[in-house]
Amino acid sequence: MLTNIIKNNNLKKCFRQVKNYSTIIKPERDSKYATINNQDINYFQNILDKHSVLTDPSDVEGFNQDWMKKYKGTSSLVLKPKTTEQVSEILKYCNNRKIAVVPQGGNTGLVGGSVPVHDEIILSLANMNKIEGFDPITGVVTCQSGTVLENIESYLSPLGYTVPIDLGAKGSCQIGGNVSTNAGGIRLLRYGGLHGNILGIEAVLADGSIIDCLSTLRKDNTGYDLKQLFIGSEGTLGVITKVSMITPPKPTSVNVGLFTCDSFDKVKTILTRAKSQLGDILSAFEFMDRPCIDVVLAHQQVQDPFDNKQPFYILIETSGFNETHDSEKLNDFLESIMNDDLIVDGSLATDTKNISAFWKLRESITESLGKEGAVYKYDLSLPMDQFYSIVEIMRNKFEGKANVVGFGHVGDGNLHLNISTPKKPYQKEIFDMIEPFVYEYTSSHRGSISAEHGIGSMKPNHLHYSKSSNSIHLMKSIKNTMDPNNILNPYKVLPN
Amino acid sequence: MLTNIIKNNNLKKCFRQVKNYSTIIKPERDSKYATINNQDINYFQNILDKHSVLTDPSDVEGFNQDWMKKYKGTSSLVLKPKTTEQVSEILKYCNNRKIAVVPQGGNTGLVGGSVPVHDEIILSLANMNKIEGFDPITGVVTCQSGTVLENIESYLSPLGYTVPIDLGAKGSCQIGGNVSTNAGGIRLLRYGGLHGNILGIEAVLADGSIIDCLSTLRKDNTGYDLKQLFIGSEGTLGVITKVSMITPPKPTSVNVGLFTCDSFDKVKTILTRAKSQLGDILSAFEFMDRPCIDVVLAHQQVQDPFDNKQPFYILIETSGFNETHDSEKLNDFLESIMNDDLIVDGSLATDTKNISAFWKLRESITESLGKEGAVYKYDLSLPMDQFYSIVEIMRNKFEGKANVVGFGHVGDGNLHLNISTPKKPYQKEIFDMIEPFVYEYTSSHRGSISAEHGIGSMKPNHLHYSKSSNSIHLMKSIKNTMDPNNILNPYKVLPN
Repeated sequence: MLTNIIKNNNLKKCFRQVKNYSTIIKPERDSKYATINNQDINYFQNILDKHSVLTDPSDVEGFNQDWMKKYKGTSSLVLKPKTTEQVSEILKYCNNRKIAVVPQGGNTGLVGGSVPVHDEIILSLANMNKIEGFDPITGVVTCQSGTVLENIESYLSPLGYTVPIDLGAKGSCQIGGNVSTNAGGIRLLRYGGLHGNILGIEAVLADGSIIDCLSTLRKDNTGYDLKQLFIGSEGTLGVITKVSMITPPKPTSVNVGLFTCDSFDKVKTILTRAKSQLGDILSAFEFMDRPCIDVVLAHQQVQDPFDNKQPFYILIETSGFNETHDSEKLNDFLESIMNDDLIVDGSLATDTKNISAFWKLRESITESLGKEGAVYKYDLSLPMDQFYSIVEIMRNKFEGKANVVGFGHVGDGNLHLNISTPKKPYQKEIFDMIEPFVYEYTSSHRGSISAEHGIGSMKPNHLHYSKSSNSIHLMKSIKNTMDPNNILNPYKVLPN
Repeated sequence: MLTNIIKNNNLKKCFRQVKNYSTIIKPERDSKYATINNQDINYFQNILDKHSVLTDPSDVEGFNQDWMKKYKGTSSLVLKPKTTEQVSEILKYCNNRKIAVVPQGGNTGLVGGSVPVHDEIILSLANMNKIEGFDPITGVVTCQSGTVLENIESYLSPLGYTVPIDLGAKGSCQIGGNVSTNAGGIRLLRYGGLHGNILGIEAVLADGSIIDCLSTLRKDNTGYDLKQLFIGSEGTLGVITKVSMITPPKPTSVNVGLFTCDSFDKVKTILTRAKSQLGDILSAFEFMDRPCIDVVLAHQQVQDPFDNKQPFYILIETSGFNETHDSEKLNDFLESIMNDDLIVDGSLATDTKNISAFWKLRESITESLGKEGAVYKYDLSLPMDQFYSIVEIMRNKFEGKANVVGFGHVGDGNLHLNISTPKKPYQKEIFDMIEPFVYEYTSSHRGSISAEHGIGSMKPNHLHYSKSSNSIHLMKSIKNTMDPNNILNPYKVLPN
């Protein structure tokens, strides 16, 4: 099963043990890149105002590091353009001078994609934060890429619309970063991903040329759909400066159900039932195994939801436009799965307080695990038949040595496999028991080693577990075509 | 408003007046391509079985021409591979020999994309027609690219699922062609487009290398999303051999409403209301103006739906999973738009016979217009504010000279503007009154000159009306990177 895995290239690299999670391979600085000098800074001060060129180390520091304090660069310059034309002038100059650049949005990523690896200039989009237009008939919103996701939601909500993407980081992540990383989140089951919801993108290529694909049309079959290239390429192919997005009407009725069942096969059957009986009002289908619940109960002020402990807990959310209809559907669904002995216990919540209590069980898992000790985290997509098996395999492997838990967006096939040990810091022997096994298992079942977090600077050398050598070769050809000097977000996404 | 339109290049081209629709620019054969010889045919007979290499002119004829008999090539060879490896061997050979190739699916396109312009080899995918897998939990289906769309629907229907795309041509179009052309159709409003619904693609590049991105995962953020490049690039970047697609549960309850109103502003308001009140069960929002109804009444056995003639007719379809709920929603919606004087008349149909009668009004427009004389057809996407204005402008322009009608998928912003004259054949003076005006108008409002039909060999020289020179330049760079000898579907999509 594992024979078709491509061997990792023998890369020129230095290893370092980082504080959290995993051994990170940090490549050496590529000497082809220029280091910035006063003349460069003068140039940037001429095209931007002085408040938009940060050189004071205390100003720059926060931009050099990610929010988890896991990745840290050594940049000495942050540029904060306000217009697409300024982004264009900056990149044109950097391309000519061979200065490397890392675009940065809200800096809320998990794989080190938005901070410099070495001394790359940080191009912050934070000052490009205007909502430029909204069409109340079509629901299409257009905004600059630095607009904070929550601000778009606040703008749309009184107009009866909602953003089709929702993340825990919504208060600080920016739409340009969401698009660049093809962020997933909890609404994906209901509204689909960004490749479907983003209608237009304006982006600046490495040579400064502006690609205006800022369409607000749902249908446009005129040539290649270039905007798709920028979605999920983590700022390595161009800097996104504006996006237009279709937004759905805001649901007015929300219900949540919590259920337990005694086998993962039943979880799968309930998913199928939910999809057909709840139809389009189904907006979340999350699962947690019992060890998740135990961890949450140990660290949070919450009650065990049912007297009867069961191996699997499912949270189902519906969002619709008719409270009576939605409740009826959810009740019919509950009756049907109870009659067929698919669940052991079940409870419905329709008021905000109880809904929050149910969601708290699911949303506290990560924080609660953090209180247990060291947590080794994996964000996988797996086919349904292998979805929970990897948790069981790892649990057997770690019996008596670590707590292995599984939870996640089962409706999207996205498993969060977490392995926690009481001991800190992270131990090599635990990593060796997990990697490359988990990656090889995922690869052999055609899964994804990064369902929603991306590759960044964390996983370029693991890319081959999810993509073939021909695919990686084609990605490199496209990168080389669009950014021949490799100035945009170097050391990220693609292996050397 | 029209100043930013890029001037057409001075192309080496020969004009010809074709039977239907429009003046087509047919480029000269590029002498860099080899012409096939017996040795080539022997080679292909060695890698395919003899029934899969068609050289008899009577066998080849049907593949040389599109179904409208509008575009015709002069190919002498059709290859019908059965496996991806055979496609790979064919392309590798053609690339080395610089033999041009046109991939062909069901050959149901409207812009000449799937037939040879000159003597390109026709690579028919018709024999690659197997459904390879279906996951009843996730609803993901995987099949070879030559699978006829209707066959996928027939396969899924008894399993309680449905394809997210539906077209008039479903009985003969193939899924690979649908994906290559990013086909739209009537379910787009409900399920979104193929960029969101296609989860994986296997494709063969011009040099024969196989790009296996045949993921069945909803979430996979590992590197660039290469499959997106093949969606809508009309076979110019690679030959799609397999696809995987997410399929939604099949709705069990369908209702249709027909309404009239006295202004297009009210049509727009009703669209907004329908989106918020009907929510996710809204599956079609089509409009026709009164001249469309008059044409249908003149040529079909149908009755005027209401005594009171009005300028605009709207057809709204809902598809859901609960008949009672859906009817209630549609009734509440009807009451609300009547109370606010948005509509003049309205009628609901819930049984198959009446539903068909309502749809017949909409679906007979094209056929009925065809009986009037010469029809000049334009498939545009326009912002809502300009959506109907172009029909009124053209109607004023043609007063007394031609019948100008507008209809289409208003829910998707997709207008079909049709201008019919009693006289055949098509007249240059009529074209001159329409083009380039309609394209320039569309361009100045950032619309699309091809909402769903694509570019093919019909519109490469009109691409600049919807895409900037930087975008076209980037498309050409990508084409050159992926197919440096330009053997795949030459003379199509991109201007010289």
